[in-house]
Amino acid sequence: MHLEQINSPEQLKRVPVSQLPRLAEEIRQFLIDSLSITGGHLGSNLGVVELTLALHYLFDSPKDRFIWDVGHQAYVHKILTGRLKQFDTLRQYKGMCGFPKMRESEHDVWETGHSSTSLSAAMGMAVARDIKGESHRIVPIIGDGALTGGMALEALNHIGNEQRNILCILNDNEMSISPNVGAIHNYLGKLRTHKHYHKIKEEMEYFLKKIPTVGGAFASAAERVKDSMKYLVVSGVLFEKLGLTYLGPVNGHSMDELLECLRQADQTEGPVLVHVVTQKGKGYLPAETHKEKLHGVTKGYKLESNKGVKKSNTPVKYPKVFGDTLIRLAEQDQRVIGVTPAMLGGSGMNEFAARFPDRCFDVGIAEQHATTFAAGVATQGMKPVLAIYSTFLQRGYDQLIHDIARQKLDVVLAVDRAGFVGADGETHQGVYDIAYMRCIPNMVVMMPKDENEFQHMLYTAYRYEGPIAVRFPRGTGLGVEMDEELKELPIGKSEVLREGGDVALLAFGTMVPFALEAADRLAREGIRCKVVNARFAKPLDSELLDELAREQLPIITIEEASAIGGFGSGVLEYFSEQEIYDMQVKTIGVPDYFVEHGDVKDQRGEVGLTVERIAHTAHNMVPRRRQRA
Amino acid sequence: MHLEQINSPEQLKRVPVSQLPRLAEEIRQFLIDSLSITGGHLGSNLGVVELTLALHYLFDSPKDRFIWDVGHQAYVHKILTGRLKQFDTLRQYKGMCGFPKMRESEHDVWETGHSSTSLSAAMGMAVARDIKGESHRIVPIIGDGALTGGMALEALNHIGNEQRNILCILNDNEMSISPNVGAIHNYLGKLRTHKHYHKIKEEMEYFLKKIPTVGGAFASAAERVKDSMKYLVVSGVLFEKLGLTYLGPVNGHSMDELLECLRQADQTEGPVLVHVVTQKGKGYLPAETHKEKLHGVTKGYKLESNKGVKKSNTPVKYPKVFGDTLIRLAEQDQRVIGVTPAMLGGSGMNEFAARFPDRCFDVGIAEQHATTFAAGVATQGMKPVLAIYSTFLQRGYDQLIHDIARQKLDVVLAVDRAGFVGADGETHQGVYDIAYMRCIPNMVVMMPKDENEFQHMLYTAYRYEGPIAVRFPRGTGLGVEMDEELKELPIGKSEVLREGGDVALLAFGTMVPFALEAADRLAREGIRCKVVNARFAKPLDSELLDELAREQLPIITIEEASAIGGFGSGVLEYFSEQEIYDMQVKTIGVPDYFVEHGDVKDQRGEVGLTVERIAHTAHNMVPRRRQRA
Repeated sequence: MHLEQINSPEQLKRVPVSQLPRLAEEIRQFLIDSLSITGGHLGSNLGVVELTLALHYLFDSPKDRFIWDVGHQAYVHKILTGRLKQFDTLRQYKGMCGFPKMRESEHDVWETGHSSTSLSAAMGMAVARDIKGESHRIVPIIGDGALTGGMALEALNHIGNEQRNILCILNDNEMSISPNVGAIHNYLGKLRTHKHYHKIKEEMEYFLKKIPTVGGAFASAAERVKDSMKYLVVSGVLFEKLGLTYLGPVNGHSMDELLECLRQADQTEGPVLVHVVTQKGKGYLPAETHKEKLHGVTKGYKLESNKGVKKSNTPVKYPKVFGDTLIRLAEQDQRVIGVTPAMLGGSGMNEFAARFPDRCFDVGIAEQHATTFAAGVATQGMKPVLAIYSTFLQRGYDQLIHDIARQKLDVVLAVDRAGFVGADGETHQGVYDIAYMRCIPNMVVMMPKDENEFQHMLYTAYRYEGPIAVRFPRGTGLGVEMDEELKELPIGKSEVLREGGDVALLAFGTMVPFALEAADRLAREGIRCKVVNARFAKPLDSELLDELAREQLPIITIEEASAIGGFGSGVLEYFSEQEIYDMQVKTIGVPDYFVEHGDVKDQRGEVGLTVERIAHTAHNMVPRRRQRA
Repeated sequence: MHLEQINSPEQLKRVPVSQLPRLAEEIRQFLIDSLSITGGHLGSNLGVVELTLALHYLFDSPKDRFIWDVGHQAYVHKILTGRLKQFDTLRQYKGMCGFPKMRESEHDVWETGHSSTSLSAAMGMAVARDIKGESHRIVPIIGDGALTGGMALEALNHIGNEQRNILCILNDNEMSISPNVGAIHNYLGKLRTHKHYHKIKEEMEYFLKKIPTVGGAFASAAERVKDSMKYLVVSGVLFEKLGLTYLGPVNGHSMDELLECLRQADQTEGPVLVHVVTQKGKGYLPAETHKEKLHGVTKGYKLESNKGVKKSNTPVKYPKVFGDTLIRLAEQDQRVIGVTPAMLGGSGMNEFAARFPDRCFDVGIAEQHATTFAAGVATQGMKPVLAIYSTFLQRGYDQLIHDIARQKLDVVLAVDRAGFVGADGETHQGVYDIAYMRCIPNMVVMMPKDENEFQHMLYTAYRYEGPIAVRFPRGTGLGVEMDEELKELPIGKSEVLREGGDVALLAFGTMVPFALEAADRLAREGIRCKVVNARFAKPLDSELLDELAREQLPIITIEEASAIGGFGSGVLEYFSEQEIYDMQVKTIGVPDYFVEHGDVKDQRGEVGLTVERIAHTAHNMVPRRRQRA
């Protein structure tokens, strides 16, 4: 039976066990071929081919609930549930989502994107099942990285205590100690799944003691953070003490081992954790160079497709500007330290980490801790810079309010991926940060119009005393010239880019070029726009706003963020506060729904963050004013 | 030496060790006497008298940093650092804060209020210390409950890996297994602090096996949640595996044991955790009934003062209405389940828990998990009701966006303590929730004008399909009659309470009675107010707003929440969206700073949430309109 003949788990179940490994290879080849065209998360999906096959082979989705943590490793699940033919649209506008999506399939029972949610969801589903008197399986599949997220640990604590039937799969795919464990895990796994627990325990602990000190001189901080959790994982002691039955570790690429262990797990009462060891990118690289290259792969690099290979003279990426500027600041001031929750590479901090290993802290997937850790550093007169994606800062929200802003601490927040993020889609859109930060006392919130201004804003934030956020977009800059010297920008002051007496376009960050282009178009029709690079969403440039009020200019605010509570709302609030009631202010921002995956261009187009919309809006506003005048 | 002679840790250090127990008793008596007048957290402070004495006796605050987790147990610390005489103003307006406060004393090096932040802060301070080449001690003091918070576990993971010198104190004060452990803890503690680790380990495990199954039939769900963490704690295995040296358990009421163990800890390299077993409320109850009553005390009841004893005919408290209504809904629909993160009593759910033990889930201090757990329950067609304080929902913010709202799940959020909270002050003010929820797609946000409407809103939320929040204030209702039958209110519809043609007062929730009173005053001056009970901050009542626009009525919005991004901003946004530019809208809300502790009345007065301000604002707006007309 070939892959294209399998359109459902039922059809998979008819495949003889002996043919499953061949099917696995077929899936692997399909993924490699297909993703080379569309892009996507190749490595993590290659790692779970056998695991996904085993789950669908043994259990009964959608009656049984498979909950994919993070969700970017659900491609094989999508293939096996009838979506093979949609892979040419993967992560594309109006195409198949890169994460589980309920409306795509009844087999997707939980949507996700952010990490560490699966255990809480599973616990919720288990409670519902038991109250309703149903008896299906609930199977969260969580990665080892996701396990360092606080909410996963909160959930484990709850799961262990409730003792309901939940079959947790730990997909352990970045085992930095695996070479050592490798020698024993098959043996131990086999024994342990047969429940010779107590006898084996001592033996296992003996073996574990033979493993060199976890981490060691060559391991990065991030690896070490993960390793201690691993140590608890491998020994199983964390799970056992919390009340889960621990089975494994099993080889995640052996169908036989997987099937055997999952059958055992299925017969166990109460919550079980099956520890599956997998290799990210399994089967992708030529066998002869397998080991070394795979090591590189396991260090967190996604195997992206060849699509969109970077040309040598494309504009610089924002994270690169961030990383370079951070290094410049760190060179001149030893109080500067960098903090990231598991996004060292994504945030452009690799070089900083290499240059300043003692001042770079990758704390793993732990946004709450990262935020308050930065606050703690700041209390001692240091200058922490917290690099965090807009969407992940949502996880550190209370810490931002309660620990950083309330104590008015000197923390620079480099809020990456602000605005639309493209293919990751609705789970990752960075469009709420202005609204959720603007209401926090003591916060300063800014966004640059281009990569050159970005470096100046980082410098400005560094010079400022108090909590301050620079939000910046995903991807590359505009290709503008970078100033040699870093400049401090005045807090709360905008930049007038063009004078004009008919309408004022107040653009925030990425929307500045759109406003300029709209102004060009409008100029051809005789409408003269004042174009302002707002720079700050908080505090606002009251001098500018007062001037606009005096001039009675209609105003259009434009921002790549939720229109509710955004920069534009700030402008409305300002005039209301000043009792200036005769202004025409129209706000353009992201409307009130979750915008799905696609190119950023598509996403902006869909919601009307376009030159056309700005021009059209201005067009409609200007005559009104002229009628008045 | 007597208590009043000790104004600093230096003076404490001159007291002979032998006299410390007497000093402890003196402090206890002072706390009991003083708090009986002012109110405050008596129990938790009585529990840490000896511990605080020992810390200040041995170590050197403020050079050494004491970081009090949650912070309501820092009264003894305040006494010993020169603030004895300020206790008559405790938690009162402009008086001494109930939590550590940097501006009160150089000995307060970290401010707090929410739980589980101390370990992250300590890690931050340790990094700063080491980079600066300093060598002082860093001593976070964290309770066992706070340890279930995900961010504490994230921090432990980081602390263990970094291996910096941090002396963590685990203040274990609600040991439900302590009667059993009691017999061995002195013995084990003593031995273990002398580092006979490995030899003792087996012995300890033997003892631990003798402890009856943790929890058992009589333990509540919440206790069981805490207990498994305890089990890890008592065995020390969690900390050891994570890389901390574990010392203890020690008797937290024996000065000798404490001093000895802390000295040992101080000589240990790397991160250490000292497990101190204390009794909440120690020394308060008469000796003869000590044990049993203390057991009640340790079950989470705060020993509040006699101040403000409830009169028999005072209005009903909001949590009581919540609890009663939840029971009514649960009686008629078995899909209804209740979820709370460690606030069973505070949220009025004790009776519900007793009536529906299988449908009540206290998950401990774990707001992230609680939120996504509720989402998981909802995916299965159940009706979860998440009871959570406004200030703590900040901890579940990402989960609210990513898991509940994005998946448009049927979760009712009962957002308690919305608005000012009184004596807990700035860390606990529930004034951001409107701003941070309004920007989330799919959310419905409402607030009742009184306790009767509250029950109807809960019913409305229950009937609604999708994410919906009812925010409600701390404390008692207005004493209005409660309807027998629950009514479903139309979503997004306001209630016009009084007609009037001069100005419209759009009041949200608690501000409705203020608006009515202001209208009365204004009526005496001939100004006729239209008074509207807004009910919904999202979606807004567009019909009403359109009507006000047609009538050209000046509008005043009034809400007990951040003016930035609040209900009033929604009104401004609406008119801008509709291109209605000639409205006079003035918003009254909480201004942009952190409002400190005091009575709610003081707090409202300070920020101008008053009848006077509303009347005055209306006064200023009406003539303008008349001039126009």
